[in-house]
Amino acid sequence: MCSFRLLPEAKRNELSLTKGKPTRKGLYMGFEYLTNVPLEQAKKEYLLTLQDKGFGTQFETVSVQESYGRITSRAVYARINAPHYAASAMDGVALRARDSFGATETTPVTLRENQFVVVDTGDPIPEDCDAVIMVEDIVKNDDGSITIHAAAAPWQHIRQIGEDICAGEMILPSFMEITPAAIGAMIAGGVLELEVIRRPVVGIIPTGDEIIPPCADPKPGDILEFNSSIFSAMLQDWGAEPKTYPIVPDRFDAIRDMLAKAADECDMVILNAGSSAGRDDYSTAAVREIGEVLYHGVAIKPGKPAILGFRGARPILGVPGYPVSGIIVIEEFLQPLIDAWYGRENDKGSRTRAKLTRQVVSGLKYQEYVRLRMGYVGNSLMASPLPRGSGVVSSFMKADGMLEVPQGTEGYTSGEEVRVRLLKDKGQLKNTLVVIGSHDPLLDEVTDLIHREDHRVFLSSAHVGSMGGIMAIRRGEAHAAGIHLLDTETGEYNRKYIRKYFPHGGVYLVRCVGRQQGLMLQKGNPLGIKRFADISKEGVRYVNRQKGSGTRILTDYLCQKEGVDSDRVYGYEREEVTHNAVAVQIAGGSADAGMGIYSAARLYDLDFLPICVEEYDLLIPESVWNTGLVKQLIRTLKSDAFRERIEAMGGYTLDRPGEIIDVF
Amino acid sequence: MCSFRLLPEAKRNELSLTKGKPTRKGLYMGFEYLTNVPLEQAKKEYLLTLQDKGFGTQFETVSVQESYGRITSRAVYARINAPHYAASAMDGVALRARDSFGATETTPVTLRENQFVVVDTGDPIPEDCDAVIMVEDIVKNDDGSITIHAAAAPWQHIRQIGEDICAGEMILPSFMEITPAAIGAMIAGGVLELEVIRRPVVGIIPTGDEIIPPCADPKPGDILEFNSSIFSAMLQDWGAEPKTYPIVPDRFDAIRDMLAKAADECDMVILNAGSSAGRDDYSTAAVREIGEVLYHGVAIKPGKPAILGFRGARPILGVPGYPVSGIIVIEEFLQPLIDAWYGRENDKGSRTRAKLTRQVVSGLKYQEYVRLRMGYVGNSLMASPLPRGSGVVSSFMKADGMLEVPQGTEGYTSGEEVRVRLLKDKGQLKNTLVVIGSHDPLLDEVTDLIHREDHRVFLSSAHVGSMGGIMAIRRGEAHAAGIHLLDTETGEYNRKYIRKYFPHGGVYLVRCVGRQQGLMLQKGNPLGIKRFADISKEGVRYVNRQKGSGTRILTDYLCQKEGVDSDRVYGYEREEVTHNAVAVQIAGGSADAGMGIYSAARLYDLDFLPICVEEYDLLIPESVWNTGLVKQLIRTLKSDAFRERIEAMGGYTLDRPGEIIDVF
Repeated sequence: MCSFRLLPEAKRNELSLTKGKPTRKGLYMGFEYLTNVPLEQAKKEYLLTLQDKGFGTQFETVSVQESYGRITSRAVYARINAPHYAASAMDGVALRARDSFGATETTPVTLRENQFVVVDTGDPIPEDCDAVIMVEDIVKNDDGSITIHAAAAPWQHIRQIGEDICAGEMILPSFMEITPAAIGAMIAGGVLELEVIRRPVVGIIPTGDEIIPPCADPKPGDILEFNSSIFSAMLQDWGAEPKTYPIVPDRFDAIRDMLAKAADECDMVILNAGSSAGRDDYSTAAVREIGEVLYHGVAIKPGKPAILGFRGARPILGVPGYPVSGIIVIEEFLQPLIDAWYGRENDKGSRTRAKLTRQVVSGLKYQEYVRLRMGYVGNSLMASPLPRGSGVVSSFMKADGMLEVPQGTEGYTSGEEVRVRLLKDKGQLKNTLVVIGSHDPLLDEVTDLIHREDHRVFLSSAHVGSMGGIMAIRRGEAHAAGIHLLDTETGEYNRKYIRKYFPHGGVYLVRCVGRQQGLMLQKGNPLGIKRFADISKEGVRYVNRQKGSGTRILTDYLCQKEGVDSDRVYGYEREEVTHNAVAVQIAGGSADAGMGIYSAARLYDLDFLPICVEEYDLLIPESVWNTGLVKQLIRTLKSDAFRERIEAMGGYTLDRPGEIIDVF
Repeated sequence: MCSFRLLPEAKRNELSLTKGKPTRKGLYMGFEYLTNVPLEQAKKEYLLTLQDKGFGTQFETVSVQESYGRITSRAVYARINAPHYAASAMDGVALRARDSFGATETTPVTLRENQFVVVDTGDPIPEDCDAVIMVEDIVKNDDGSITIHAAAAPWQHIRQIGEDICAGEMILPSFMEITPAAIGAMIAGGVLELEVIRRPVVGIIPTGDEIIPPCADPKPGDILEFNSSIFSAMLQDWGAEPKTYPIVPDRFDAIRDMLAKAADECDMVILNAGSSAGRDDYSTAAVREIGEVLYHGVAIKPGKPAILGFRGARPILGVPGYPVSGIIVIEEFLQPLIDAWYGRENDKGSRTRAKLTRQVVSGLKYQEYVRLRMGYVGNSLMASPLPRGSGVVSSFMKADGMLEVPQGTEGYTSGEEVRVRLLKDKGQLKNTLVVIGSHDPLLDEVTDLIHREDHRVFLSSAHVGSMGGIMAIRRGEAHAAGIHLLDTETGEYNRKYIRKYFPHGGVYLVRCVGRQQGLMLQKGNPLGIKRFADISKEGVRYVNRQKGSGTRILTDYLCQKEGVDSDRVYGYEREEVTHNAVAVQIAGGSADAGMGIYSAARLYDLDFLPICVEEYDLLIPESVWNTGLVKQLIRTLKSDAFRERIEAMGGYTLDRPGEIIDVF
């Protein structure tokens, strides 16, 4: 129930300057105790504690024209009638109804000019008139009189006062969202301003010496401050008004002073630690200095070191620096407060059941959050766990759903049906092509082309290697899998694997591209690598692809063929899951060589030693072959736009893409 | 296929001054031809015509921080890696992995101070290091060295460059909505601005001499300009940016000049006629003067006189002045253009099937729009047509759904299942108490109290009189009906009617209020009305309630009992459907007397001649008695808050409200 932190020297020194106050335990090589309070308990106590201090809805008066989407604080009553005068409902003439009595087709009645008044729709009815005859039912005579062939009933074709809204009547009850038509009804009812729920102002304080504002050329160690931008968008979505403060350096007094300022100016405050856990200690201490801390440490992962603080009725939420942790802590603790402010039910998206494509292992100690890629394959909703790293903001962006593994649960097995929270709507998931298998950047281009052609259609790809793709298709988890598997006996690609893993058929192998594989090397090839076997030379740092990927199978095969002992290749066990990731390590200088495709080497401006051209094909189950989604995929592969994109990337050859390969 | 318009004298004169140009036909007592083109044809041709002129999506560059909710115009690629440097993933020490090789529990390895560097999470990994050991796995020695009991694998606990996002990789495809996490991913990927779809600017031009800005004390003939406020909110909802111009008087040149200005400044223009149909002619002519008109007149009701105009690629939509007509024309013609601008599918809400509670009669000539009050009673979704008047903006506000009766269809019978477009979500409809029957303002107060207690619960009431309420309950269309039906033989209320219409039981009669009925009279009673029979006196203008209402039954009974010949009561056939509406006519001076309840007389400051106290009760089917909705209704009737509201209204007595009355 505790964790501890090593503080580096610089920070130790800095801390020792802060007057020994407030109390901190075990600063160096010691322990900073965190609680591990269960999530629901923490949420409930936090809200109750704040409400006890007076936390709750506040109101403000706004003009009706600016009230769209706001929530009424109390019932709104009409101040005037609408219409506020008796008006003609037609173009025609107004008259006294009794002057028309007796008029029929056979006994027409003629009215003199002083017996009627010409009126347009909307014109007021003259005081002594009580009916309108439509212009179509009037014959105009040369002397200015008119003749009618039917009597007018009193009040016919007149919009009576209050027909729409009567003064004093309720237009809207309390706590209703204001719609466009409600704005019209209020103005018609003479209501020009009204009281609505004020949007809570939420201060966001980014802290950290290494945190810098967004820029395109950060130096090593700089961390771009994007959490406040993420949080701001989330807060707007929830009806709050974000207010971001300047980045505060890692100094106790600076943090404390900014906290005090924000707690004065805002209804709620988010204190966002940098990514360095060592800094949490300042945060807790600073919150304690200006207010109180209910809990420091909650049994959730990510998000454990959350600080549930407050000053009076104003919550101060300490949020870990990693974006995913921060998003989860804010969703779990701040969103319920904003909901309570608005007096509404917590709405964190709809829940549904889905089938896990991989097992999920979770610790018993925490409620764990697992982001999911989801899609319908046939009628089954499939959920694939995304990388869990709390720094991986891209995984949150890609997430279609969230699995919450409760505290005390060890996880779930592959294939198990679990209850998940949807982050996208079901309609979108039903229109998503699920592609699981070997990575190639061309899949991103296909994603873009497909969505450009039909904005309702999405493609979601997961990179698990060629063998992972084959297994996903076997389990019915994907519409397609990218594969490039070399049969080391025949030099043929893919066909033998299909026959082995799908002995009864049921799948199509579809031509995609031929692609150039080779060794990606530091620019200028400073180590003079001339052939594949050079990867085992002294001083060459290799970076590999993960086991089960087609490129890894190729690499292992090349080692065997070229007589390279992979145990003697430095870094052979260092695995990356995409071509680009391998290229990035080489470009970044932490590796010298790695197998990959030409387009990745070109993207990162690396040298490239060609080794072979391989077939990268798509494996598609027969069961989905005739779906609109797969048809669109095939259409895209055959398109000129696809050819143009592929040619621009370089290192690919195209030979009748989209055609079925004869396998069986 | 044509309609015509009478122009009043003032307008004739004005028109004759406009230089005879452009061509207009039949200005006085003549014809202004309108087309009656079918809706779908008009929509399709309008879009194609505009696209032919170059209408389509436009783009703009915005900063990433301001891009929340916007739509990408093209794929967004990362410019830098995230992380952009190799960073420690833990608090601990960085080292060369090979320096740790051989360390085990039994053969620990000690590292000198120059063999490791203390790092915090997020710190850069020093150049010659390639692993991190967690602080928990380190023993610190007094001489500054550290001892470890396990070897470090190369790259362990290091966040490698590009772990989250690799430079050059696609972050977002084209035409994707930007989420909070996507903002984070873009900033992490070094993207600081991006191209998104520009929000189209839509100009709104209100016109009309009688149109005035919203105010609380309009004079007779003044029409409050609220259409632009309604349209603005709708446009915002669709992703457009509204721009409202000042009100333009009814002059051809003024309208033409403002149109030209708006067509210069905006992407689309709405020309909003006043409610006077006579003015349409200026609109068409003005559009023709600065651009072209595709159609004037579409086969929809309301909304017939829509003008589908354009200048170049910019649509100019002429919209009728009545708010409901305007809303429908804008939904049918402008929303599809905004959808086309965004390249998205038209989304006008989900559709579902519902049972009509009353017949709907429609003309064959037009597609007709009928607004519906909807609610689930048991498992059936019921739809009750609302008043169709196109000036009745409150009916749009109350509408839960819309029935579109196609051109060429005569309508639907009561009880028929029809396909409707939902304007509210199903969850809300499932949480809506449906109350149909006699009107009393206390129902509005109950609506407010119920929604205040639980914001998820709504009450929807329709005023069809006591007999209408009984019929609605018989047909299973409502959770409750307000009734006050006098048995003229016994003077008893409600019980006999229940026994007659529900001979087999199945309903509960629930006490609500006793209420004072009487004659509402002009303030000060200028006509000296002393008793009920005085309503037939010469010079007294009566205003009645509709047939089937409890108050009308009472009035008819009183006539009979007091020997009043209703044929001799002036205005006896003039019907209003609520107490308030009757009171408003008297307060407005167009009537002298009408039966109604004390609270209505008091609200409008009228004199009141008490006649009797009646029982206003609620009739509730047994089948819904145990639902949460009905339980909450009963709880509210029994509450102190209800008592306070009722007492504040005046004219009511309370005797155990919410208790069941013994009927059978």
